[in-house]
Amino acid sequence: MDHAPDDTDVSSAVERLAGLVRRTPVVFPGPGAFGVAKELALKLECLQHAGSFKVRGSFNTALAAELPDSGLIAASGGNHGIAVAHVARSLGVGAEVFVPGVSSAVKVDRIRALGATVHVVGELYDDAQAACDERAAETHALNIHPYDAPLTVAGQATLGVELLQQVDVLDTVVVAVGGGGLAAGLAAALPSHVRMVCVEPETSRCLSAAIEAGHPIPVEVAGVAADSLGAKTIGAVPWQLLADRAESVVVSDEAISAARRRLWDDARVVAEHGGATALAAITSGMVELGPDERTAVVVCGSNTDPRDLVD
Amino acid sequence: MDHAPDDTDVSSAVERLAGLVRRTPVVFPGPGAFGVAKELALKLECLQHAGSFKVRGSFNTALAAELPDSGLIAASGGNHGIAVAHVARSLGVGAEVFVPGVSSAVKVDRIRALGATVHVVGELYDDAQAACDERAAETHALNIHPYDAPLTVAGQATLGVELLQQVDVLDTVVVAVGGGGLAAGLAAALPSHVRMVCVEPETSRCLSAAIEAGHPIPVEVAGVAADSLGAKTIGAVPWQLLADRAESVVVSDEAISAARRRLWDDARVVAEHGGATALAAITSGMVELGPDERTAVVVCGSNTDPRDLVD
Repeated sequence: MDHAPDDTDVSSAVERLAGLVRRTPVVFPGPGAFGVAKELALKLECLQHAGSFKVRGSFNTALAAELPDSGLIAASGGNHGIAVAHVARSLGVGAEVFVPGVSSAVKVDRIRALGATVHVVGELYDDAQAACDERAAETHALNIHPYDAPLTVAGQATLGVELLQQVDVLDTVVVAVGGGGLAAGLAAALPSHVRMVCVEPETSRCLSAAIEAGHPIPVEVAGVAADSLGAKTIGAVPWQLLADRAESVVVSDEAISAARRRLWDDARVVAEHGGATALAAITSGMVELGPDERTAVVVCGSNTDPRDLVD
Repeated sequence: MDHAPDDTDVSSAVERLAGLVRRTPVVFPGPGAFGVAKELALKLECLQHAGSFKVRGSFNTALAAELPDSGLIAASGGNHGIAVAHVARSLGVGAEVFVPGVSSAVKVDRIRALGATVHVVGELYDDAQAACDERAAETHALNIHPYDAPLTVAGQATLGVELLQQVDVLDTVVVAVGGGGLAAGLAAALPSHVRMVCVEPETSRCLSAAIEAGHPIPVEVAGVAADSLGAKTIGAVPWQLLADRAESVVVSDEAISAARRRLWDDARVVAEHGGATALAAITSGMVELGPDERTAVVVCGSNTDPRDLVD
């Protein structure tokens, strides 16, 4: 499979993942929550196994393959590594995970706790990916890309399939973008009339830059969400699905931190900074939503230290 | 209404609460979560407005009454006070809340943040209730009892109505008991064939003591969940519904703390100690569940400081 995933690929992913991933809930915190007058639906993918949507793409990739004796290998800002470690443990194989220095201690500890071998390499995600690819060529372990692979994107698309089953009407979905795997999965799963608002930190805006340039280009990466949204360049597979579909919005680190805090205060949901980034586009007023626009916000990850949620 | 609530009272509560309380989600973390082999359904009432089920009973009581100019008044270990403050603000009236010294700073701060006047009186919940009743006689504010009142219990019953709609089959429900309002509400809402396991801290066991004595009797109150489950005596109204129905289990403070930690680690759910007490009965092996026994666990509150969830 070397094309962007189509409906058949998404259906296959739904079948493969049955019983292995959680059907995460959609909640309606009520008008006024987060200081937003309109009703929002929150897809709480932060309650997923391994704390993020990443297990969807990882299970889909692993189950579509013949698993080599050398098991799984991956590079990751952290969440994908936790997911690959979870999948490897579930399937009874080993895993090696390459993370950059920017990865948080919470994430590295979780990968180790799941039994995977962790290598900390370089500063940012792309450094870890290069080291991972080199090692994979030696060991022939199954190298699961965090976002730029059709099977990964088809796995993430299962979140969109669930969401459609869980809400009566869906006009708009708001989703954070790192390398673009989740957003591309939603683009593959959701009917074309659904508006897709893709949100990035202004300090890590590879999709926004690609849209401006007309093609993927590398950007500098920094900020509070760099350990989950810190890809330098939008993935080539995601770009195929997002270029003509995604509306791009960028938000400040301050807006992300404030939205993360409001998620806890108003809805008792703990999200990591990347997981609060989609909501931040709404709470900071960076996206206009009509009063009757039925809007779902994906809260995509919770691999975070909750100690800074209270003063 | 001076009887234990019946089906009509529960139906009336469902109608009154429409649009005012959140339909909190039920999630299935999967076999193996929390070190428990069997599949459990978790009713995440910790995601409710004001962080606990208490808004259900408070809205039901307030909406069934003519609201006096002096507004609402209540005594509370904390959660009921937050709920009453939330309800008062929603209905545009004032509120006074009496809390004991054992109430956590997180709870007292939340009551104040919602605009209610807080009085800290005595050490335990019963001291605060006495002061509240005295003040209510002066002001004629609507005194909403946290558990020992038919309208309160009928409000909490709406959680049971939701739960029945959310799961295909329900054999057993596991719920924490303080004064018994929530458990009694479930007894009112759930068919008599549903097994009801009522869980208390061994340091605050008024239902267990009442069952042993054959009638409500006061107990000493202490321990990690005293600020939410710390009633000295089971309520008279709850006792009517629970005496012939409830199976009583007590758990240690250590089991409660461990279950609270596992809720975060395995399901990314933040609960207060009282909110993790029902799960603690299962994770500590204090209740036997058959392999095919479809079991729901109520996670009933999240008014907690999350800083101790990580090392």
